[in-house]
Amino acid sequence: MKKVVIIGGGTGNFTVLKGLKNFDLDLSAIVSMADDGGSTGILRDELGVLPPGDVRQCLVALSNSSRLMRSLMNYRFENGNLGGHSFGNLLLSALEKVTGSFETAVEEMGKIMYIKGKVIPVTTNQTRLKMVLRNRKLLEGEKEVYLSKEIDKGYHSIYLEPYPKANQQALYEIKHADLVILGPGGLHTSLIPNLLVDGIATALLNSQAKKVFIANLMNRKGQTTEFSVSSYVSELTRFIGKDVFDYIIVNKQHPPKELIDIYSEEGTLVRNDLKESRVIEANLLGELKEQPKADLIKRNLIRHDPDKLAQELVKIVNHL
Amino acid sequence: MKKVVIIGGGTGNFTVLKGLKNFDLDLSAIVSMADDGGSTGILRDELGVLPPGDVRQCLVALSNSSRLMRSLMNYRFENGNLGGHSFGNLLLSALEKVTGSFETAVEEMGKIMYIKGKVIPVTTNQTRLKMVLRNRKLLEGEKEVYLSKEIDKGYHSIYLEPYPKANQQALYEIKHADLVILGPGGLHTSLIPNLLVDGIATALLNSQAKKVFIANLMNRKGQTTEFSVSSYVSELTRFIGKDVFDYIIVNKQHPPKELIDIYSEEGTLVRNDLKESRVIEANLLGELKEQPKADLIKRNLIRHDPDKLAQELVKIVNHL
Repeated sequence: MKKVVIIGGGTGNFTVLKGLKNFDLDLSAIVSMADDGGSTGILRDELGVLPPGDVRQCLVALSNSSRLMRSLMNYRFENGNLGGHSFGNLLLSALEKVTGSFETAVEEMGKIMYIKGKVIPVTTNQTRLKMVLRNRKLLEGEKEVYLSKEIDKGYHSIYLEPYPKANQQALYEIKHADLVILGPGGLHTSLIPNLLVDGIATALLNSQAKKVFIANLMNRKGQTTEFSVSSYVSELTRFIGKDVFDYIIVNKQHPPKELIDIYSEEGTLVRNDLKESRVIEANLLGELKEQPKADLIKRNLIRHDPDKLAQELVKIVNHL
Repeated sequence: MKKVVIIGGGTGNFTVLKGLKNFDLDLSAIVSMADDGGSTGILRDELGVLPPGDVRQCLVALSNSSRLMRSLMNYRFENGNLGGHSFGNLLLSALEKVTGSFETAVEEMGKIMYIKGKVIPVTTNQTRLKMVLRNRKLLEGEKEVYLSKEIDKGYHSIYLEPYPKANQQALYEIKHADLVILGPGGLHTSLIPNLLVDGIATALLNSQAKKVFIANLMNRKGQTTEFSVSSYVSELTRFIGKDVFDYIIVNKQHPPKELIDIYSEEGTLVRNDLKESRVIEANLLGELKEQPKADLIKRNLIRHDPDKLAQELVKIVNHL
């Protein structure tokens, strides 16, 4: 069985894992530990736990449990002091407290959720994402980086503080992988934070695995304004040390103009400026089942289809 | 397999269920829905859910899951806005929100916990325990009743408001039971609140089941001050409408004097003043594994041993 490792965090990871789960693969999700917004941020601050949010999403994506259990894990309390907390986050944090170990907590929650594959925190050290902008402004925490609209004006540095050591199991998975997948996902908030962990970039450089980058569909204004596919690849390459990508998967399907219009305040489509043989172009968009509503989060309107994405990835795996 | 129904709520129930779990019996725990203190009270107020605390305790008592899962369900968050909430309570409340039904939530949590038997809320109506004292003071909520030190001076009435209908399944279980067990437990806070639910007393009167009362070990000062076993039986009989008890289980083992001294501020031993043939006297005390510590809750120092209690109950079942 081919070993496929997905590096990321957040919604992008979720889509890739959800699609790949249906194939006969040995899956591992290596997950960024930089999240400090929302429910996750409150739990970090109040309980001193490691960030559960991205891990929870990956566990749900890989889960073979009932629809009820998956709904439960993503359920957010609506009122009172619990308001905004996702139940799955509380479960992970309580398990971390009871077992004394975040890794054990993730494993146990994996059992409860009957997951296929493994979910591995990229580090088990407490760390925060920081970014110094060109104007010397310091952004502290992933949430501040996520909300900034000035990153496209350039930055001096992005780093994790304290500087975390990679989880040994993450290094092991990368070393023994047949395929490593990066993306899609927030460049500065989901992808790069993994590469900033001590040991991960080196492991990627040394691994015999084929490496795939899945390009994002949309840029985020103020963050990756007007980025093309090659801009993403060069930015990632800065942090890995070398352009390691054997394949780059790019969507070629054009979204309906009305969706692009709705999205235009948030950002524009990622343009493909690479015509190399390693670039795989395919129709990858998810279908909208309903008419777009004003209360839907805009960035969810134009999204990858988990199954179409998985098909392209499996074609690559089958050629290994 | 004999059908045994335990009516109660709180720690007393926990002890009986924990002991009976190891025998080949069809167990059902009917649980009071009047709790409104602590974590349970906050969840009722903030989320509008039914009270999870006593149900959670019964589920844990009947659980065949790992020690980790049982620890997890009883784990209480220590800090921040989650401080004081037990994880199992949050699970039940989240399940109630996701499924839209407290009964379904209890069933699903039963599956997660691999419970033996069934846990059945006595009612699924939202209701509060109220008590009018002799001095006309109104106690609102089980917590106020629990904390009152004036109940021993007499009360005019105790009732549930709004007046709740019994859960049909609770009525079914009582009707078809071979043995129904009441107690041990808080007289006004765990036992009587079940009898105040519309339909329960009548079901008890009509049921062919043998009925057992397990007498408490200790009185609570200001509540059941200087109560004897017969005082408990008469008080319960007021609410059932008739003395239905075929058996009364009473502890005859004397606790160490030092424990009685430690406990003396809280209350005194329940004296047995019944010498009828239905009274079963046995040594029922749990052993203290450690020296009593000042920080232990006093009422936990003198307690029933789950296995000794179960043995007496099983003897009764074997004679049915």
